[in-house]
Amino acid sequence: MDFNVIRCARAILHVTDLDRSRKFYVDALGFIETESDENHIYLRGLEEHSHHSLMLKKAVKPAVEALGYKVSSNRDLEALALMFEKNGFTTKWIEKGEQYALGRALRVQDISGLPLEFFAEMETVDRLLQRYDLYKGSRMQRIDHFNCAVPNVEVAYEFYQQELGFSCSEYTETQEGSVWAAWLHRKQNVHDIAFMNSLGPRLHHIGFWLPDQLSLIHTCDVLASMGYGEAIERGPGRHGLSNAFFLYLRDPDGHRIELYNGDYLTSDPDFKPIRWDINDPMRQTFWGHEAPDKWFKEASVVLDVLTEKEVELVPAKLAQHKPTFVI
Amino acid sequence: MDFNVIRCARAILHVTDLDRSRKFYVDALGFIETESDENHIYLRGLEEHSHHSLMLKKAVKPAVEALGYKVSSNRDLEALALMFEKNGFTTKWIEKGEQYALGRALRVQDISGLPLEFFAEMETVDRLLQRYDLYKGSRMQRIDHFNCAVPNVEVAYEFYQQELGFSCSEYTETQEGSVWAAWLHRKQNVHDIAFMNSLGPRLHHIGFWLPDQLSLIHTCDVLASMGYGEAIERGPGRHGLSNAFFLYLRDPDGHRIELYNGDYLTSDPDFKPIRWDINDPMRQTFWGHEAPDKWFKEASVVLDVLTEKEVELVPAKLAQHKPTFVI
Amino acid sequence: MDFNVIRCARAILHVTDLDRSRKFYVDALGFIETESDENHIYLRGLEEHSHHSLMLKKAVKPAVEALGYKVSSNRDLEALALMFEKNGFTTKWIEKGEQYALGRALRVQDISGLPLEFFAEMETVDRLLQRYDLYKGSRMQRIDHFNCAVPNVEVAYEFYQQELGFSCSEYTETQEGSVWAAWLHRKQNVHDIAFMNSLGPRLHHIGFWLPDQLSLIHTCDVLASMGYGEAIERGPGRHGLSNAFFLYLRDPDGHRIELYNGDYLTSDPDFKPIRWDINDPMRQTFWGHEAPDKWFKEASVVLDVLTEKEVELVPAKLAQHKPTFVI
Amino acid sequence: MDFNVIRCARAILHVTDLDRSRKFYVDALGFIETESDENHIYLRGLEEHSHHSLMLKKAVKPAVEALGYKVSSNRDLEALALMFEKNGFTTKWIEKGEQYALGRALRVQDISGLPLEFFAEMETVDRLLQRYDLYKGSRMQRIDHFNCAVPNVEVAYEFYQQELGFSCSEYTETQEGSVWAAWLHRKQNVHDIAFMNSLGPRLHHIGFWLPDQLSLIHTCDVLASMGYGEAIERGPGRHGLSNAFFLYLRDPDGHRIELYNGDYLTSDPDFKPIRWDINDPMRQTFWGHEAPDKWFKEASVVLDVLTEKEVELVPAKLAQHKPTFVI
Repeated sequence: MDFNVIRCARAILHVTDLDRSRKFYVDALGFIETESDENHIYLRGLEEHSHHSLMLKKAVKPAVEALGYKVSSNRDLEALALMFEKNGFTTKWIEKGEQYALGRALRVQDISGLPLEFFAEMETVDRLLQRYDLYKGSRMQRIDHFNCAVPNVEVAYEFYQQELGFSCSEYTETQEGSVWAAWLHRKQNVHDIAFMNSLGPRLHHIGFWLPDQLSLIHTCDVLASMGYGEAIERGPGRHGLSNAFFLYLRDPDGHRIELYNGDYLTSDPDFKPIRWDINDPMRQTFWGHEAPDKWFKEASVVLDVLTEKEVELVPAKLAQHKPTFVI
Repeated sequence: MDFNVIRCARAILHVTDLDRSRKFYVDALGFIETESDENHIYLRGLEEHSHHSLMLKKAVKPAVEALGYKVSSNRDLEALALMFEKNGFTTKWIEKGEQYALGRALRVQDISGLPLEFFAEMETVDRLLQRYDLYKGSRMQRIDHFNCAVPNVEVAYEFYQQELGFSCSEYTETQEGSVWAAWLHRKQNVHDIAFMNSLGPRLHHIGFWLPDQLSLIHTCDVLASMGYGEAIERGPGRHGLSNAFFLYLRDPDGHRIELYNGDYLTSDPDFKPIRWDINDPMRQTFWGHEAPDKWFKEASVVLDVLTEKEVELVPAKLAQHKPTFVI
Repeated sequence: MDFNVIRCARAILHVTDLDRSRKFYVDALGFIETESDENHIYLRGLEEHSHHSLMLKKAVKPAVEALGYKVSSNRDLEALALMFEKNGFTTKWIEKGEQYALGRALRVQDISGLPLEFFAEMETVDRLLQRYDLYKGSRMQRIDHFNCAVPNVEVAYEFYQQELGFSCSEYTETQEGSVWAAWLHRKQNVHDIAFMNSLGPRLHHIGFWLPDQLSLIHTCDVLASMGYGEAIERGPGRHGLSNAFFLYLRDPDGHRIELYNGDYLTSDPDFKPIRWDINDPMRQTFWGHEAPDKWFKEASVVLDVLTEKEVELVPAKLAQHKPTFVI
Repeated sequence: MDFNVIRCARAILHVTDLDRSRKFYVDALGFIETESDENHIYLRGLEEHSHHSLMLKKAVKPAVEALGYKVSSNRDLEALALMFEKNGFTTKWIEKGEQYALGRALRVQDISGLPLEFFAEMETVDRLLQRYDLYKGSRMQRIDHFNCAVPNVEVAYEFYQQELGFSCSEYTETQEGSVWAAWLHRKQNVHDIAFMNSLGPRLHHIGFWLPDQLSLIHTCDVLASMGYGEAIERGPGRHGLSNAFFLYLRDPDGHRIELYNGDYLTSDPDFKPIRWDINDPMRQTFWGHEAPDKWFKEASVVLDVLTEKEVELVPAKLAQHKPTFVI
């Protein structure tokens, strides 16, 4: 492979009311608002030196415009484009200057239909890690991963490993030996992307990393005191998979955000992916209340990188044994 | 009043298998086992200088034998006996030496039929607060309160305030102006006893105080890793009432234990009890998953202090508007 | 005793620059500013329902005007005045309305020369315990205690116990059997007031209670990021005495503030005061760096309640074996 | 570069009394003892799937035998040997089977005289991350970094970056523009190795990662209650450099251990090393007590990989402006 995908780096979400979103993400969750204009809010965590990791774009309908990955250099983008094209994918270039604060970007619909974006350059800004006086709400640190519902996990699982260079840290297997869900990473923790067997392609959630467990508990307290009690969809609890201490929120447009802490170092090439049996009750919920139905059924629609229309949904390949189709 | 009830001080629970209980309370929750014999285990928290705050007694059937309160002196016991008798209650004395590690005790069925015990003396032991090398599991600190289901809350509410000298910190009121639930205290925090409108008299739970929120989260992790995942019935979450950060567990016999942290100082005589409307959604659950049905329906039966038989249950006086009969 | 002192309730500190003080107490430490005018700032913790627990008063020179205790009722004030007068003390009344937000107050110089104030009534305000969206900095909860340097600890120790009804939770004894320092309480935790053998009378520090250990660590981070690194005088560390996890700060005028968490319930009348040998190294510092000299030598001067002049200092009665004269 | 150094992976320390070391590392700090024999104890953290990250070897005198790095494959070892030999270093091979639980290893004295070891294979064992019932003491997670005193930082700084492929995350510069200290990493956090200008080569400390700040505070409490108060040399505090919330301990042989939490992700190739001025007071101590002299002066001697004798010490190249020669 002559390219190097560094990590999941930003998401572009369409939201319907920027002020309402700002109140949720900035006032309650403690994201730093790097900049904003009439139609966009650029958000980042306290640890991040990139201009933003979450871009909110005013739109008529909530949707996911792109899931962005940082690569090592602009040459990597050329190599990536070549690989995608060789595999029959249609790519789209967005030149430097066309997107605010971003260098040249490559967009492509991935093998599951997810709208990907690759870029090497983003404007850098002051890292506020040591500006503890600015910490509030969740004490948001940094973007961590995307979690997507796809109809055929095995196809995605293999493409990301063989063509994009991802490694698998953990996976869920059915009793027939099919991969039901998979956690794949480039950076050295559990994942940059996870795939679950479901109606898709859809974005299930974006994961953000918090500095400790208490920040997650305090997030619940802050949300409740601001009238956002309903935004807490699931948790706090711990996943067996990934060891994440988790909290799932729904933003004002219904996009799902995971706040989490836990995880572990996955630097070693001889680390063997952890296999979870789909029927292991500790897999999804090491402990914690049962997830509500909507956690399983609802997810954000994604857009076509070329047409900007919603991508059509395809039913899950594997039968739904039980409502626990994800994680 | 010529007696002074200090605080809720110990519970006597009947359990069916002492070894199974020990594994739960000592190994998982981190209680200190002060002593034990073939038929009893005497447990205390790390902060406690009293011999025990939880006494487990081997029995054929789970039940609550007594809810014990500490008073200032043995003379207070006489005054208490007089007050109860004057009000038509039948009292029972257990002389010093008849109960292990305890001084003279007065037992009586309270106005709701709950088996109370009052005593001034208990053997003292080393307080292990600064033996941090012994901290494990929940880092259990001390007993905090009893929470009971009673058919007529207002009767209990008035008796405890007028005859026993308790103060009300918080209460829940129906739209008709009836007291649905009440939190009453002698020591200077939210409660030593709470009453809720329900089929009773029954013990809903015993509350134990933890040093911080992380100990509660770690309890979940420890329980799950020991195979006690099912023991977690509700939480973690926060009650609006009392501001408790809570976790409800069911012990191997089904007795319910609340681990909590939060609370506040109630030393001031001019502190006005906080009124919660029964329909205020923040009341029970400031945030957190909905409580499961069994949390509302199941509770421990209590014994008659004279006959040692189970006390007969009486239906709740106020209609159950909704399953949220307790907190 | 026909009066009931409830708890230490407010301090009045003279400061030289209100804006500078506000930045420290409100912006950095997270006190709630209930109200302020040109010459005063009234501060309280998140848990407090009283108008203020710390009153800053603009003055030419830093000093302590009064250490205030709440009593049960205005009648208690009369009884207190009688007791003080019977013992030869000169009392001073400040009528309701003369002090902002306060009822009638009794002031008197105590047996060590400390300026005390007693009152039953203070305006109540909204308790912000559950306004988690307002939590910042230290997440300041409530005033907890005063710690004073006095020349003759035993005299103070006896007066507070015998005449004012305080109980001793812990004390330090010299090898000759003299009381070197004592922790005395009315509310049910370790102390409302502590006395140490030293040049006095002076206020060593005011203790404020934080909800958990992490709030104390975060305070250090916030102070450092705001340029207040020098304000951290000692800690974090743990005292053997009182089990406090502590942090000592110096405000912009040099007044010392202790932020702490830990402590334990002292409700039981048969709790035996814990004796610490003055030479026990764990006494002062269970663990933590050595306290700097200034922590031992510097303290705030106090004013005469009648003349409003600084009270003259008297050398300590007991010899200074070592610099560890206080905790 | 045709080799890939993954991360710092194990240290071999000579200690004089294995039982005494076990009490410190296992009982107090909570390391997992994977295995041991008469002359060795093999320790690992709760997160680690490698057989050990700290090997204690019984010896007459405390010393550092080797600082071990994991590489991708055995072929990398050959490439590494070639590079070292080409640069004039003498290498030493230890074949698989000669060291317990380890594959083939390459040892070499680095450019500063530090005894390095490289290996690709170590036996794997159960990762105990989710065995929360085994968590105790510090809740030790994993080895993180080595910190070494070397006489010429710039030479080491350049060799590790140019010949070994390390990246610099942060560094300290003198006013003359010399590199005084440097933090270098292979895995994606702040460092695997740091170098400071000092008498060397010596090992200043081994850094271990803890799951959160409270585990570090609890370590202090546990150490104090076990009589290890003196083992706490510095902290808790926060470094400006690396943002580490730190605690420095001295083991029974005087080897220094850093427990820490904080840090940040360094995955991005365009992350610019953070420059600290040597006179910036926030650099070493963002907040916290001054480090004691011994923290600056004392460090562990290292052995020659060929002769097994102590490596001779060379004075620091840059003048000691001040005692703050490290971090």
